[in-house]
Amino acid sequence: MSLFRKDIDRIEGYVPGEQPRESGWTKLNTNENPYPPSLKVVAAIKAAAEGRLNIYPDPIATRFRQLAARTFNVDPDWILPANGSDENLTILIRTFVDAGELISYPYPSYILYETLADIQGARHERLQLNPDWSWDFDSTAAAIGHSKMVLVPNPNSPSGTLWTDEELQRLVPPNGVFVLDQAYGDFRDEADTGAILHGELGKRIVVTRTLSKSYSLAGIRFGFAIAHPDLIAGMRKAKDSYNCNTLSLAAAVAALEDQQWMLDNISKVRCTRTRLTNELIKHGFMVVPSQANFVWATHSSRRHADIYQALKERKILVRFMEFQLAGGATTDGLRITIGTDDEIDRFLLELNQLV
Amino acid sequence: MSLFRKDIDRIEGYVPGEQPRESGWTKLNTNENPYPPSLKVVAAIKAAAEGRLNIYPDPIATRFRQLAARTFNVDPDWILPANGSDENLTILIRTFVDAGELISYPYPSYILYETLADIQGARHERLQLNPDWSWDFDSTAAAIGHSKMVLVPNPNSPSGTLWTDEELQRLVPPNGVFVLDQAYGDFRDEADTGAILHGELGKRIVVTRTLSKSYSLAGIRFGFAIAHPDLIAGMRKAKDSYNCNTLSLAAAVAALEDQQWMLDNISKVRCTRTRLTNELIKHGFMVVPSQANFVWATHSSRRHADIYQALKERKILVRFMEFQLAGGATTDGLRITIGTDDEIDRFLLELNQLV
Repeated sequence: MSLFRKDIDRIEGYVPGEQPRESGWTKLNTNENPYPPSLKVVAAIKAAAEGRLNIYPDPIATRFRQLAARTFNVDPDWILPANGSDENLTILIRTFVDAGELISYPYPSYILYETLADIQGARHERLQLNPDWSWDFDSTAAAIGHSKMVLVPNPNSPSGTLWTDEELQRLVPPNGVFVLDQAYGDFRDEADTGAILHGELGKRIVVTRTLSKSYSLAGIRFGFAIAHPDLIAGMRKAKDSYNCNTLSLAAAVAALEDQQWMLDNISKVRCTRTRLTNELIKHGFMVVPSQANFVWATHSSRRHADIYQALKERKILVRFMEFQLAGGATTDGLRITIGTDDEIDRFLLELNQLV
Repeated sequence: MSLFRKDIDRIEGYVPGEQPRESGWTKLNTNENPYPPSLKVVAAIKAAAEGRLNIYPDPIATRFRQLAARTFNVDPDWILPANGSDENLTILIRTFVDAGELISYPYPSYILYETLADIQGARHERLQLNPDWSWDFDSTAAAIGHSKMVLVPNPNSPSGTLWTDEELQRLVPPNGVFVLDQAYGDFRDEADTGAILHGELGKRIVVTRTLSKSYSLAGIRFGFAIAHPDLIAGMRKAKDSYNCNTLSLAAAVAALEDQQWMLDNISKVRCTRTRLTNELIKHGFMVVPSQANFVWATHSSRRHADIYQALKERKILVRFMEFQLAGGATTDGLRITIGTDDEIDRFLLELNQLV
């Protein structure tokens, strides 16, 4: 007899993108920001390292919540920090979804949602997107009637496409919670002011944010949820008391205080995104117009797995992804993270020899 | 209708010990180490802060696992790091215990086990200790027959008492997992070499360790589990991919590399523990002989809540704890963390005016 829960036995476990530890790689595979974090963040971590690390961190992240609240124009009790957005998603599912209940999300999208549903023993349903990444909102809104939780990344991954608040509001399940995963929200051309959280429907919506991408801090693991205090109060019961450490809290506060640094970096990323998109099209790729820090590219004649492999042999990592279509067939493509201009030049130089 | 899971609705949530953010307090309430971490740890964090924080951490904590494995004389695949022991306990329950299954633990003990069981929707059973903190192992071994998980802190909290491997082996449930919580293990007079993990019974035992206490690193949130690789493999499926951050990983590696720093500090804590114990006895307290970095003290005539409150008014925090006895009555006492000699002098000076 297995010692494990049956839900653990039957899953493989989530496999994150490759993270080579040695240097020399051009990493365009896990949507990290190619620019370093603010020097003020580095200074804040060093100061915290000199501080009282023998003492537990502030379990309610007072300073961070005040700052995030000001940034999003809500009160601090609307904010819940977590050890990365991954932990926030785990907390959300453990707060709202019982074993056997239904979780829904677009497909293709962030596949971690499915793993987290599996761990919880929840049922899950993929809400299939059209081949052009659009969504039939009439049929989708009808499909989520029995969902306890609908999770939607906006912009979506791997497409980088965006839905409007009006479209998303149709996906708030009548007896459940809508999670709007804004991991890539800062890379949009037009900023999102969080308007969807207010009003009656907003009482069943949770926005999740991360410092990993736009603030260049994937290494410190810091995300936060924004939602009505009634929802946050329940989520707080499901989290570990000290889920964010003294160093990441100090880094997160300094990062939010230096908005200009983040804005300058995402502006560079957006410029490079346009250039990469144009160059890929010249090389025979179809590229979905992206509002995130990556693009989804498919080639009309070359095999994506071969391109991925050939690039890897040249120490360039992109993400090869394969998805199932509605009829049972599969489709695939390459998700390419926006690197620095130098990294993208190097990528294009090698690509030139491949396609 | 509530949006929350019924398990979330019916719990209050765990309340950690008081953590005042302003200075001036003598904190003897949450079993932190009063001494700072090694300067090599501080240097390692600063170096990591200068590194690539824009990149995700190593999801499998390669260097840390190698080092911890060497320290405990096992292979690296016996080690699973986590965001504090709290996260390891959460991972353990999510890996092994389904809703409705039974979790057992000594009582009085670490009350978080009960909260974690509640969040998972598991049943839980308190295995009552005798008033002198001893345990009737015959009846207890009989009581755990249907447990999926038995959790035992050794040394126990709040008593600081220790059980032998021979006693603990009797509590490995026949169809479940035994979790040996060694959060305070380094403070024992005789080191534990982890012998209990080897042999046939060891395949159902998980030891959890933390850097919070003996390594003076409560602020960085770092714990790890040691168990047979078959158990670790299942636990890995239940954890977030990047559950430890770049900074805490760097700190943890440096901490384990500087064993002498930790050993010097716990030696000081043990000396102060003896002195505090003797002084408390002189002041009319009964003190349980402790093998941890705290003592459990009960006074023959004074009300513990009053002593706690009077100390708090003097900016000294100890932990007032209340427990239910087998018959339904309650008992209480004070758990006092071993501070520096100066802190304990201050505590004794004030106590002198109170009892």
